[in-house]
Amino acid sequence: MLMRIILFIIIGLYMFNTEVTLAQAQTFSKEKREFSMPSLTFFNGQTIPDVRVGWEAYGSLNEAKDNAILITHYFTGNSHAAGQYSEDGEPGYWDMIIGPGKAIDTDIYYVIAVDTLANLGVHDPYVITTGPASINPKTNKPYGLSFPVITMRDQVNVQKALIESLGITKLHAVIGASMGSMQALEWASAYPEMVPRVAAVIGSAHSDAWTTTALEHWSMPIKLDANWNNGDYYDNKPPIAGLTASLMAITQTALHPNYMNLIGTQLGHFPLEDAPLMNINADHAITTWLKQRAAERAEVMDANHLLYLVRACQLYMAGQKGSLKEGLTALNAKVLLMPASNDLLLMPYHLELTHQALSDMGKSSELIYLDGDFGHLNGLATIAQANDTLREFLKRSPTDNHND
Amino acid sequence: MLMRIILFIIIGLYMFNTEVTLAQAQTFSKEKREFSMPSLTFFNGQTIPDVRVGWEAYGSLNEAKDNAILITHYFTGNSHAAGQYSEDGEPGYWDMIIGPGKAIDTDIYYVIAVDTLANLGVHDPYVITTGPASINPKTNKPYGLSFPVITMRDQVNVQKALIESLGITKLHAVIGASMGSMQALEWASAYPEMVPRVAAVIGSAHSDAWTTTALEHWSMPIKLDANWNNGDYYDNKPPIAGLTASLMAITQTALHPNYMNLIGTQLGHFPLEDAPLMNINADHAITTWLKQRAAERAEVMDANHLLYLVRACQLYMAGQKGSLKEGLTALNAKVLLMPASNDLLLMPYHLELTHQALSDMGKSSELIYLDGDFGHLNGLATIAQANDTLREFLKRSPTDNHND
Repeated sequence: MLMRIILFIIIGLYMFNTEVTLAQAQTFSKEKREFSMPSLTFFNGQTIPDVRVGWEAYGSLNEAKDNAILITHYFTGNSHAAGQYSEDGEPGYWDMIIGPGKAIDTDIYYVIAVDTLANLGVHDPYVITTGPASINPKTNKPYGLSFPVITMRDQVNVQKALIESLGITKLHAVIGASMGSMQALEWASAYPEMVPRVAAVIGSAHSDAWTTTALEHWSMPIKLDANWNNGDYYDNKPPIAGLTASLMAITQTALHPNYMNLIGTQLGHFPLEDAPLMNINADHAITTWLKQRAAERAEVMDANHLLYLVRACQLYMAGQKGSLKEGLTALNAKVLLMPASNDLLLMPYHLELTHQALSDMGKSSELIYLDGDFGHLNGLATIAQANDTLREFLKRSPTDNHND
Repeated sequence: MLMRIILFIIIGLYMFNTEVTLAQAQTFSKEKREFSMPSLTFFNGQTIPDVRVGWEAYGSLNEAKDNAILITHYFTGNSHAAGQYSEDGEPGYWDMIIGPGKAIDTDIYYVIAVDTLANLGVHDPYVITTGPASINPKTNKPYGLSFPVITMRDQVNVQKALIESLGITKLHAVIGASMGSMQALEWASAYPEMVPRVAAVIGSAHSDAWTTTALEHWSMPIKLDANWNNGDYYDNKPPIAGLTASLMAITQTALHPNYMNLIGTQLGHFPLEDAPLMNINADHAITTWLKQRAAERAEVMDANHLLYLVRACQLYMAGQKGSLKEGLTALNAKVLLMPASNDLLLMPYHLELTHQALSDMGKSSELIYLDGDFGHLNGLATIAQANDTLREFLKRSPTDNHND
């Protein structure tokens, strides 16, 4: 929280002190911009006016405007993919692979990242998003559950409008982790002429039955919280307990026993701890650790937004057609698929199926596994291991054929 | 529910028609008996009076009273381990391996199974248990959260009192699946002189940090339900929505994508189903399937009991000592450990660690993997594959040494 207050103060400095702005601009990245659209028609047919999202960019767009790479973010993330907002600010989540001389080389590429619709971080000063917590101009009240159900196609269409507003007609690549991989694959399936290369990290090309119910467990705690009130809580207490429980569930499934047990060792985890042995309402230290982390994150997040992102993931089918094969048929990109070998959320079989489907259709697909102790989160925490693979992938000509 | 009504009618027939009782008795097993203790002092030091649990037995106790095998049940299970209550009744959960000529051969062994304390099936006419939903004789009201926190040792101590009441001083073996494996290993650690053989199926010898928090996600939905009211709901509406969500989470983690996706195929799972695309509150067909199953099970279960069993699992450390090694030191049994290779709830590493710890101490331990599409539930659904292994294991002399 202290970090967020400091960040808030820095935003204030930006606004009133050009010198600071310039000094910061000389280091790498860190500006949040806003993109707005007068209206957006969703995949399900509904339309809303005045859509606004935040975005960041790193590197420079060349004259031909053909060096842009789009980075699509994961479920609890936002467009802060690289760089720092200040010298002591947190680096972007993929800072290990985005930057000068790194795989996604900002000396070569112009790297764009966009906050999703219904981004979780509604109260994060660095996030700009439109979703159920936004004011509906027609009623002057928050949309709540009257906000249209969102699909990955809708996220992609907002990103596409932004990119086209910059004069970019073709991207060099789209790369995303987890929910971001769904957007990346959707880009390559929906707009194949704009995407010559796509990399899906810890991802999936569709939500199978298992994943659909697994994700439902992220929504259920929110809906059980009486403060949720069917999504109408903006004038009252928000469902913080439900949101916190949901974020705990997300962290649990995104991690792996290897990492959680390392934390357990640090905390001196012991099954027969006194407090939980004597009191059914007391928690083990490891549970408190997980709960506190989630409660801190819940402070800047919105529960309805979480429901909408869960639904977008549940509805995901690459190309948004009748089947995976049908949806991937139009895809014309070189594809790099990077599952984490011990992922418990989107297990490797997801991208293995995608690889098989693409290979069966004679499309270019590479399958490379990420290792580490973090399970799904190897796609973030240990992503540095992907530097060489990604660097080579981005250099490859779109006409090279590479199946393995 | 219809099946339960039929079962209820059959219970009525038992009570008024001896002929039916005798006719049933000629087939295999099916009688529920009651065992009571005047009081029980728990591991945490608290004492309650009038403890009652249900139990079943299959086969005959021999004159030497040395052919008894104890079967300890899993989290949502009860003592109905084998046989049927009526010709069209559901067979016990391990009927595939318990019975005449099967691995746990009722022509040879006297097989005993006991309902746990705080068994979930409070409203199941075939379950007898003592727990938070029971009447506290001192207040004439349900205990609620004033019931003592339960550990595996307490479950074992009730079973031990029952077994000793039958004049049995030494068991042939203790065998259990999942939470039952914890009780089995606790038996062998706490009362080594009574347990020459122990088999732990889809189990663990302690709750590590990962498992402790994973189990917490089964409790959280109940605590989020306003009807839970800190456990005091027996005069009002019980927290059915929370309990249902909890049972959905249990089924999710106990299964495997292979099986859930088979159900998905049967249901015609399709990510872009119309209802969830148009309405954020609508569910996918696969979610409805999971919810309905859970809601049916919730009808006979009690939410507080679920919290107590979660806590008993979280507190589990074999031997209930300061460390796993310390706890397993006294164990003198031949040990058979059977993880399911694709278990996502108690992953194989649990029993691999137990095997390593036992082997390091020079104790007899075998590690055999179960296969199948059910994940954790391979320990129930596909247990027939264990028949030969278990049969041989039970025949082995306790003095044979067998490390592998």
